[in-house]
Amino acid sequence: MVAERHSTRNDRDSITLAALKLLDEVGLPDLSMRRLAHELGVQPSALYWHFANKQELLAAVADRILARIDSPTSSTGSGAAVNVARSIRDALLTYRDGAEIVMSSYALGFGADRAHAALVAALSLSPVENPAGRASVLFQFILGHALVVQQRLHAESHGAAAPSPEADPSAGFAVTFDLGVHTFLTGVTAS
Amino acid sequence: MVAERHSTRNDRDSITLAALKLLDEVGLPDLSMRRLAHELGVQPSALYWHFANKQELLAAVADRILARIDSPTSSTGSGAAVNVARSIRDALLTYRDGAEIVMSSYALGFGADRAHAALVAALSLSPVENPAGRASVLFQFILGHALVVQQRLHAESHGAAAPSPEADPSAGFAVTFDLGVHTFLTGVTAS
Repeated sequence: MVAERHSTRNDRDSITLAALKLLDEVGLPDLSMRRLAHELGVQPSALYWHFANKQELLAAVADRILARIDSPTSSTGSGAAVNVARSIRDALLTYRDGAEIVMSSYALGFGADRAHAALVAALSLSPVENPAGRASVLFQFILGHALVVQQRLHAESHGAAAPSPEADPSAGFAVTFDLGVHTFLTGVTAS
Repeated sequence: MVAERHSTRNDRDSITLAALKLLDEVGLPDLSMRRLAHELGVQPSALYWHFANKQELLAAVADRILARIDSPTSSTGSGAAVNVARSIRDALLTYRDGAEIVMSSYALGFGADRAHAALVAALSLSPVENPAGRASVLFQFILGHALVVQQRLHAESHGAAAPSPEADPSAGFAVTFDLGVHTFLTGVTAS
């Protein structure tokens, strides 16, 4: 019984990792259960034994993307929140279409809890009103920012972007992100 | 010459409006130049006479979506910024996949200038450092928020959403949005 559960868990993990690898090759629009099954050399029905539908698979992929984010460790809420926010952004940008997958799972209530929970924990290190609501706000800023950056970098790599309004887009994005987190945390402290 | 330019402009507007209408019916993934041409009863080549590619058409659609946002009118920067931020959110949520289209055009540098410019104008009504950067931050929060809300509402209408972490999702979203704008503007004032 234990061995069986363990094996099932391993299968889910292997499928999730294969989905992340395929995602990197083909992108989210072309990531289908059929194609994933083909890559794994199994029938699509074998995947549905582990994941009820594609949305559930994508939620597992979202959780895997967020597995690497930092837990809050600093002694003050602001410093910890900055670190957690940056590690969430970095995780989203590490994987092709990572921001879109995590945004979608979060919106549908299927996953991405880890990111929100880490922000709540970081904000709660200092006395703050409504840390859950503030964490939602900060997470939505991080998602919006990462979606814009990821879409732009993808377009630039295909030569499909117009000149950016920012003088140096890649440097500019990092500056805008830090400005956003700083402004938000200043607002939390001053509220 | 003037009449010819006027006629071309009219054609662009008609095509953009037809694209918005088709968007409402089929959604962004199924909005193709071929399908739009079919709806208009013309050859796809006729569309490419007005728009170099689909991205340029979508930028015109994004500008049309944002045409209804408020210009800042209040006497204080904060009050004006709240109104502009809400009107941008409302515009994005009025059209199916509106947030995604505007996010994409903004990221690629093809459009959505009007939203950013209105936020800069509102923030600049009070003395503020780096209003352009702050406007980018606020716009990215609005985009992230609207993308989450729009994706969730769409999934709920198809019965494909899991229970939301928020007690009352629709009321919760409006509360989270106002909390975000308020926290951000407090941070701008206190910086």
